[in-house]
Order: sequence, then structure tokens, then C-alpha cells
Amino acid sequence: MRLRNKPWAVKLVQDHPESVIDRPDPSQKINWSKRFADISKPLEIEVGPGKGKFITTMAEEHPEKNFVALELQMTAAGMILRTKLAKDLSNLQILCADAANIASFFDSHSASKIYLNFSDPWPKTRHEKRRLTYKSFLQKYQTVLQENGQIEFKTDNAGLFAYSVHSMNNFGMHFDFVSVDLHNEKDEIVAANIETEYEHKFAAQGNPIYALHADFGVK
Amino acid sequence: MRLRNKPWAVKLVQDHPESVIDRPDPSQKINWSKRFADISKPLEIEVGPGKGKFITTMAEEHPEKNFVALELQMTAAGMILRTKLAKDLSNLQILCADAANIASFFDSHSASKIYLNFSDPWPKTRHEKRRLTYKSFLQKYQTVLQENGQIEFKTDNAGLFAYSVHSMNNFGMHFDFVSVDLHNEKDEIVAANIETEYEHKFAAQGNPIYALHADFGVK
Repeated sequence: MRLRNKPWAVKLVQDHPESVIDRPDPSQKINWSKRFADISKPLEIEVGPGKGKFITTMAEEHPEKNFVALELQMTAAGMILRTKLAKDLSNLQILCADAANIASFFDSHSASKIYLNFSDPWPKTRHEKRRLTYKSFLQKYQTVLQENGQIEFKTDNAGLFAYSVHSMNNFGMHFDFVSVDLHNEKDEIVAANIETEYEHKFAAQGNPIYALHADFGVK
Repeated sequence: MRLRNKPWAVKLVQDHPESVIDRPDPSQKINWSKRFADISKPLEIEVGPGKGKFITTMAEEHPEKNFVALELQMTAAGMILRTKLAKDLSNLQILCADAANIASFFDSHSASKIYLNFSDPWPKTRHEKRRLTYKSFLQKYQTVLQENGQIEFKTDNAGLFAYSVHSMNNFGMHFDFVSVDLHNEKDEIVAANIETEYEHKFAAQGNPIYALHADFGVK
């Protein structure tokens, strides 16, 4: 979802180059070892975190991991940054860039997880290539993820979910977890789920939340 | 769903050995060429047709194919038989037997489709092996289906659907069609869908219908 432009967000991002990599040159890899205190921690990436409730909560609850929020919108990046600063999350970096270039920004097989939460469904067939689970994106995630690294995808959009199940299966991915009603799964699954802002709103309206966890491992 | 026992059904089945194969010996293949006028027609099987609205409608609309209703319950078999006789469906045979023996009753790679409609969800983990999409069943379907033969599965049960997506993917199956809201798909998909008795009832209550079409073809 496009957010209304907030001038403070642009200013905040500009004032914090140590926390935000602002529209980097896709022809150069980013030196993440200069950005994380301990580069040996597992790296997890959220693509399209929006306002960032999910990724900031993850970073707070998992100091043993490093996180990157890959977000194109400057306003959203500024909102994530504000939370990062307020909570002093040294294990979270914000990458303000196009997800289509994800494979340019990370070393091959360097990440352990990629999260796709409530991505834009792009419902029109002619926009299929923009969906974050289109095969060209899956190919890039495969490059970035370690062997047996996992994609964790959730959405409230029936069309995008069905499309993604189909697309990931046809790409040869191996499914680890599937739900068409995540909020009514067993207690331990529900308890482990970290909600995004949208998820909370949609679920409160009684809509089911769909989830799929998958890897590129050999079947 | 278990149907109340109907004595007339048992009698009807017993009176029509030309239409119903009643609990055959699983150690012997069935000679289908003696049961269908034209054995060269594509063969499609429904496992667990219940009262048989789906399979009898299919047989009526597709005289160019042969159909087998594989149903364990005698009462259900009798109800399907009654419709077959009323509509004079010579391209439909009823096999009153346990689906676990499906690979015993058909020649290898002889069927072009297997339909699983609103199968018993067996929600308890300890009953997983009874679900018709458990891997041991998939293995049998693979034996019975021709190369690129397809399984068409639909259900209103969220747990069974998620389980089946997971199970078929992990078995290495290739997905051809996925929907988590079949009755709200594009017009041509909705128009082509033949409803079962249960489907009509569940959908009328506003429940989504889930569907998955998959094959064992090389990815």
C-alpha cells in the first residue's frame, strides 16, 4: 500500500545513513559486515515491510539474528527507522530499494529467511510479473537464501495466495507449512505468529489469513 | 459421511451385478473391457462419490468418457446406481470397495483422472493415514493414473485442504490449478464446476470451496 508522503520521514532517513541504505547502486554489493556488529548471526530479510511492525518486533525478540527491512517507499522506511531508533535495534538495517534488485544487494546464499507479508496482490494478469512470488522473484530469493533457507509468506488475499502456492510449487519449491486459516491453527502456531499492522486489521474483520513456508531444498 | 442404511439399496445393488462390482477380491484385476462398451474411451474415477451427484452428472455430460464410482458404502452405491439406471448411463460403473485397494482394481496407468470431492477430513493427527491425500494413497493414484493424468481435489475443509497441498507438494506433484475460493473464480471456471451435494450446501452457507488440480508429471 502506498503511504501518504511524510516530509519528516525523508529528513529522518537522510539524517541516519548508519541505519538506512538509501537507494544504493544495484551494481555494487553492500558491505553488511560494516553495518552489523556481529555478521556471524543469521540474516533474515523482510521484503516490503511497510510500516514495519513485523520486522521491528522480530528484531526486538531475536537479538541473536540480524534483520534487513527491504522497503522501496521512503515514508515507510522513515517509519521503520523511527521505531528502530526508539527501541535501539542495532540488529536491524533498512534498505530503501527496489526488491527486483534483491540479488544485487546480498552475497549469494547469505540469508536464512525471507519474509513476504501481505504483499501487493497485483490482481490483474498483465501485472503478474510484479507479484513478489512470480518466478523471476523466486529465482532471486533462491540466489540470496542459503541452502534450505526458507521463504515465509502470508497474506489475506485469496488470489495472491492461490497464485503463490501454484508458482512456488511449479518452481520446484518444497513446502514446509501451509495454512488457509492461520489464526485458527493450533495454539502454539497462533502464539508464535507475529502480526503485521494489516494482518491485525484484516483478521479483526473476520477474514482468514493464509500462510505458506517453503524452501528450495532437494525434494 | 456415513449414510443411514437403506435396505432397498442393498437389494438394488444385488439385482444389478452388470452395473456394480460388489466388494471384489483385491487379489484380482477387474476386466473393465467387459463392463464398458468402448474401452478405448478415457477412464475417470471418483473416489468416495457419496450420493453421486458429481459422477452421474459427469457421466451424463461426457458420453465420450468412461467413469467409475469407487464407493465403500453400500447405501451410497445403491443411490448412485438408482441414478445410473434412471438416466441410462452406460458409461458409468460402480465399484463398491475400499479405496485403499484402488491399485488392485485397475491396470497400471489406465486412468486419466481421479476425482476426490469433499473427502472425510480425518482431522485427528493419529488418523492422518486415512486421509485420501496421505502419501500412501498418492502412491496408489500414481500407479493407476496415466502419465500426466490428473487428480482433481476439492473440499470445504480448511485443514484437509492445507494438508493436501502440503502432502501433494512433498510427494513431488506438480500443481495445475489452485483456488481457495472456487465459487468466486473467473466466470468460465465457475461455469465449468460441477457441484456435489455437499458443495452446494456448504457454499450456500457462505463457506469457501478450496480446489487443487495436480499431476505426477516431471517438473
